Amino acid sequence: MSHNLLLLLHLFIFLSLSITSSLSSPSPADSHPYLWPLPVEFSSGNDTLSVDPAVTLIVAGNGGGSPIVRAAFERYMGIIFKHVSSRASLLAKIRFLRMVEYDYDITSLKIIVHSDSEELQLGVDESYTLMVSKKNEQSVVGAATIEANTVYGALRGLETFSQLCAFDYLTKSVQIYKAPWYIQDKPRFKYRGLLVDTSRHYLPIDVIKQIIESMAFAKLNVLHWHIVDEQSFPLETPTYPNLWKGAYSRWERYTVEDASEIVRFAKMRGINVMAEVDVPGHAESWGTGYPDLWPSLSCREPLDVTKNFTFDVISGILTDMRKIFPFELFHLGGDEVNTDCWKNTTHVKEWLEGRNFTTKDAYKYFVLRAQQIAISKNWTPVNWEETFSSFGKYLDPRTVVQNWLVSDICQKAVAKGFRCIFSNQGYWYLDHLDVQWDTVYNTEPLNGIEDPSLQKLVIGGEVCMWGETADTSVVLQTIWPRAAAAAERMWSTREAVSKGNITLTVLPRLHYFRCLLNNRGVPAAPVDNWYARRPPSGPGSCYAQ
Amino acid sequence: MSHNLLLLLHLFIFLSLSITSSLSSPSPADSHPYLWPLPVEFSSGNDTLSVDPAVTLIVAGNGGGSPIVRAAFERYMGIIFKHVSSRASLLAKIRFLRMVEYDYDITSLKIIVHSDSEELQLGVDESYTLMVSKKNEQSVVGAATIEANTVYGALRGLETFSQLCAFDYLTKSVQIYKAPWYIQDKPRFKYRGLLVDTSRHYLPIDVIKQIIESMAFAKLNVLHWHIVDEQSFPLETPTYPNLWKGAYSRWERYTVEDASEIVRFAKMRGINVMAEVDVPGHAESWGTGYPDLWPSLSCREPLDVTKNFTFDVISGILTDMRKIFPFELFHLGGDEVNTDCWKNTTHVKEWLEGRNFTTKDAYKYFVLRAQQIAISKNWTPVNWEETFSSFGKYLDPRTVVQNWLVSDICQKAVAKGFRCIFSNQGYWYLDHLDVQWDTVYNTEPLNGIEDPSLQKLVIGGEVCMWGETADTSVVLQTIWPRAAAAAERMWSTREAVSKGNITLTVLPRLHYFRCLLNNRGVPAAPVDNWYARRPPSGPGSCYAQ
Repeated sequence: MSHNLLLLLHLFIFLSLSITSSLSSPSPADSHPYLWPLPVEFSSGNDTLSVDPAVTLIVAGNGGGSPIVRAAFERYMGIIFKHVSSRASLLAKIRFLRMVEYDYDITSLKIIVHSDSEELQLGVDESYTLMVSKKNEQSVVGAATIEANTVYGALRGLETFSQLCAFDYLTKSVQIYKAPWYIQDKPRFKYRGLLVDTSRHYLPIDVIKQIIESMAFAKLNVLHWHIVDEQSFPLETPTYPNLWKGAYSRWERYTVEDASEIVRFAKMRGINVMAEVDVPGHAESWGTGYPDLWPSLSCREPLDVTKNFTFDVISGILTDMRKIFPFELFHLGGDEVNTDCWKNTTHVKEWLEGRNFTTKDAYKYFVLRAQQIAISKNWTPVNWEETFSSFGKYLDPRTVVQNWLVSDICQKAVAKGFRCIFSNQGYWYLDHLDVQWDTVYNTEPLNGIEDPSLQKLVIGGEVCMWGETADTSVVLQTIWPRAAAAAERMWSTREAVSKGNITLTVLPRLHYFRCLLNNRGVPAAPVDNWYARRPPSGPGSCYAQ
Repeated sequence: MSHNLLLLLHLFIFLSLSITSSLSSPSPADSHPYLWPLPVEFSSGNDTLSVDPAVTLIVAGNGGGSPIVRAAFERYMGIIFKHVSSRASLLAKIRFLRMVEYDYDITSLKIIVHSDSEELQLGVDESYTLMVSKKNEQSVVGAATIEANTVYGALRGLETFSQLCAFDYLTKSVQIYKAPWYIQDKPRFKYRGLLVDTSRHYLPIDVIKQIIESMAFAKLNVLHWHIVDEQSFPLETPTYPNLWKGAYSRWERYTVEDASEIVRFAKMRGINVMAEVDVPGHAESWGTGYPDLWPSLSCREPLDVTKNFTFDVISGILTDMRKIFPFELFHLGGDEVNTDCWKNTTHVKEWLEGRNFTTKDAYKYFVLRAQQIAISKNWTPVNWEETFSSFGKYLDPRTVVQNWLVSDICQKAVAKGFRCIFSNQGYWYLDHLDVQWDTVYNTEPLNGIEDPSLQKLVIGGEVCMWGETADTSVVLQTIWPRAAAAAERMWSTREAVSKGNITLTVLPRLHYFRCLLNNRGVPAAPVDNWYARRPPSGPGSCYAQ
């Protein structure tokens, strides 16, 4: 933010008649606007401003002209003005032709983006400032302005702006209540992920796009794509073209172009895609196309550790994937490796004996060799926590450890200098249907880590939507609204999400956000379900279920 | 169809090398193309044709230039070429610029629409002929051609065309297998409805649009919009502006413009919207805005039969709605009228005594007076079956009786000369979650009606998605795939849907159609669920669950 604008902002804040605390808890009666996730710092007033349906985009800064900004503006205008009548659109058009002058308070949205870099990597600057005020003598900064260092910060600001805009059914116009607004915001964690699993059930491209679109509404920023697993191998890998013979059917597949389109679609929404190839366990489906990857027909996973072919295939897959996935993190899995059948396979047993390896040594050997392949392709490896707990001191120091099993694994991993992603199954596995929203919300990734320098190694967290019993028909309602609870935990300040009676301070906003998702076509389930994705038990309002 | 084209068609059929019977049952191995619902008459061959991603639309006939046709073509191109890589699009663009000539078999789709009328009413001609063949010496009619009398027939033909087009993952192109195709098709019933209930749970506009879009995929053609009920009154009615105070919240509402937009959106897909105002029962929410409509505070429905004000309000609502809903049918409800509390309300009791009315007489009086209001506004009244069983001989002869309760009510209604809509709760109520797809499929609206002239009075059927436990989060997966079973029953010939082992002849196609819905972003639930909308019990292919 430029120094001058900062000065103006301070003036602006000073002049605002009513400044609420950044933690003012909305009461159910005082029901608008509700923001989700809660911005770091905000103040509001008592004005109600009308927004012109023909609101124009004014861009500034080196990155303002980005097509990412323009496309996002168009998307959000579609969302904000959904209810505005065709008459209003007509009037807007007339106004645009300068034939009539209407009296809207907000007629333009100015988006200032300082950097022209559109690189989307871990830790990209997502901060933004959003100001909304009437043009008059009191406020020197008029209309609506989003200022950000990157286009991705601007996207977050647009989302917040869209949440300030409410359709008023009496005047049939879009209004912003409690203006002037001044919001300064940035995420607490740089990695805020959602895992989807396209191996247990294939998810069509349109459905993955629906998921990505919905993530942007909650300011999540990493789609962890668990592409393949033991059940199916849906992705095309040109170097080893038989691999996707392991798909469920000839239609349940992703071409390279499909995957690239998903990455492009996600980038337009400021979301990185982290691909996962889970080795050496969870890989039985690879052998459908290349049976040599199976130690034997009765031992189909873990992959055959003895053959160079196995690592050639991994290298080939990673070469192909590197062209699709620009994100610096790549997930190599490494979880739940049951090596029993290695011991029972003659040639593997001989290989182990020849190297004087236990099966655990062989597991380590496999994971470390796969890590080096990923690193050689300029990727930072991510592995599930078993790799750390089994042979942590041998892992490449760049490794990001992903928690799922043991509550304090991030604590242990960061103590050893590793970075960590929190996604404990007891709290943040979305396929655990008996975990309610408040448990998700109250789970703190930094628990037990006091040293600020160690806290920084927890790059964030992730909610995991494992696909065994979640296909296209139920995946979105299993994700939402609970993923939103984790999203606020990871975005907002720790103080903001950790104090007060959340039934009073958070639940009404979460109800509101769930209905916002519904209004945007996302089938988020009732908030007050005891079991996730259960339908409502009877008639009622979205805001009360 | 013009006589000349008919001649050509006969020639075409004659020349086709392989003609399959119109009931050829696809085997699981022979898995493409699967059409749903099954066309009345079709023949296929053994060619595989590639479809140009830059396929051009050629229109002919008085109605060919309709924006409805153009918009549908664009929608279906988006569906058909979803997987085609950006490279293919690029090549297509180059080709379009005439710089390179590619060798696709199908480079244009010709749509001939004879009538320029876009009126969408009950019984509108939805027939079409679809031909797909390679241009060569054998087939005198080349490329792909849809011929229809109306734009709505053309829409049905486009849907069928889209189901013939399959993305081939090996060549990465869209192909049509088993060409040449000759399909002549029309619906068995003119009314093929789906009820949605926006009173028990509010459904956002985007969700209603998702439902309408999905209906078009199964060739359903009436959205029965059960707008209001005792729980909430979401619709704006300018003449009585307090009525929508009975909405659940200030946001769970439809403006007149919202409703008009839904009607417009549906019309673009050849779907009529039949509105319902269910009187005198199921109307408690009306009194939130106008308490005088309640007989008393302890008797809030049925509506107060004694006051002219009650009928003034109905008339006002219908005047407002007439401007929104052009469909000739309007549903006045009339079901489940429990008049007990009328008897216990002093002024109603006196009114009854003064007229020497039983409460049943008063119920009849109410329904008939409401019917006359609807008729005066140029609507054909539809009523639930209790009106027929209670006082059928007094109903206006134009009344369409809608079945829900008694299995043979259509039989009885048509015997008295009334038209009837079949939607028996035991089979076609989608909120009955224990009804499986095969029960839905095997239910025949004409059962027990032998006389062809009486059969004609059964205008069709309707699956009903009552909303008590189906909100935005689950409505689409409760509707699909079972609604598709009814859709084929109502579209295809009675012979086609009534013979053979449906587990062999129908189930594989229904699996395929469910996955088609998934691929188009519609969260249709597994077909083989014992209870509707249950998630899959474990990992697996969409085509096998």
